[in-house]
Amino acid sequence: MQNNKYIVVVGCGRVGSQLANQLSREGNSVVVIDRNEATFDDLSSDFSGFRVHGDATQLSVLKEAKLSKAHAFVATTHEDNVNLMVAQIARRLFDVPHVMARVFDPKREDIYAQLGIETICPTSVAAGMFLRAIANGAMEKQGEQA
Amino acid sequence: MQNNKYIVVVGCGRVGSQLANQLSREGNSVVVIDRNEATFDDLSSDFSGFRVHGDATQLSVLKEAKLSKAHAFVATTHEDNVNLMVAQIARRLFDVPHVMARVFDPKREDIYAQLGIETICPTSVAAGMFLRAIANGAMEKQGEQA
Repeated sequence: MQNNKYIVVVGCGRVGSQLANQLSREGNSVVVIDRNEATFDDLSSDFSGFRVHGDATQLSVLKEAKLSKAHAFVATTHEDNVNLMVAQIARRLFDVPHVMARVFDPKREDIYAQLGIETICPTSVAAGMFLRAIANGAMEKQGEQA
Repeated sequence: MQNNKYIVVVGCGRVGSQLANQLSREGNSVVVIDRNEATFDDLSSDFSGFRVHGDATQLSVLKEAKLSKAHAFVATTHEDNVNLMVAQIARRLFDVPHVMARVFDPKREDIYAQLGIETICPTSVAAGMFLRAIANGAMEKQGEQA
């Protein structure tokens, strides 16, 4: 249980905010970056991390987030190109050891893998879950997996 | 292996098209409904199902899709309200036995459950996968799960 990691999350949408809240709750140091300040409203009242308001594709913003200290980096924005770019910067320029990105287009997962970026594709995951549910005739309730 | 089901999919975006393609490939009878005809371009060349161009919140469109014959119904659009509405119609008015919906706002999952709609929340799933990846220090590659 290494719950004292320094983790930078780009994008404070539904996935980013949920992730940041949970990571903070588990005792990690979390920095969330978003260019839309209003998204920070989705952080819970007990969120103990930092908010950086700015465009994560700009080096100055990533430096403000102290990216070189980070153990892990997660790009969760809605734009695959932004996620790929910031993930590459985190990996190559700031030597973050564990870099992950959300990728919407399943066809892009191969490219990401070749560039050393680990990916999660909610599209493929959702389609796969519906397929299994249909095959089983009844849904595996998500609550039972949690 | 019941691969001769009649399945209606609402929304032909990334999740809907991936799902429809795979269900068709497995031998099911599939109908995809979308109000944007261009989305049908994402169906693969071997997709053997039907395309219904129209607004799935309208009864005439659901009748055209022969919803009363359906074994399963999946609402995959980007709008939670649309998904909830068409899922309710499928359940209550067309007696479809197995009704599923994609829901973006995790807070809504409880409401859906109370209305008898089974849900998949890609947001929660993605956040959960990132959390596990960070906890493990390395990503479980999605390819290995497939």
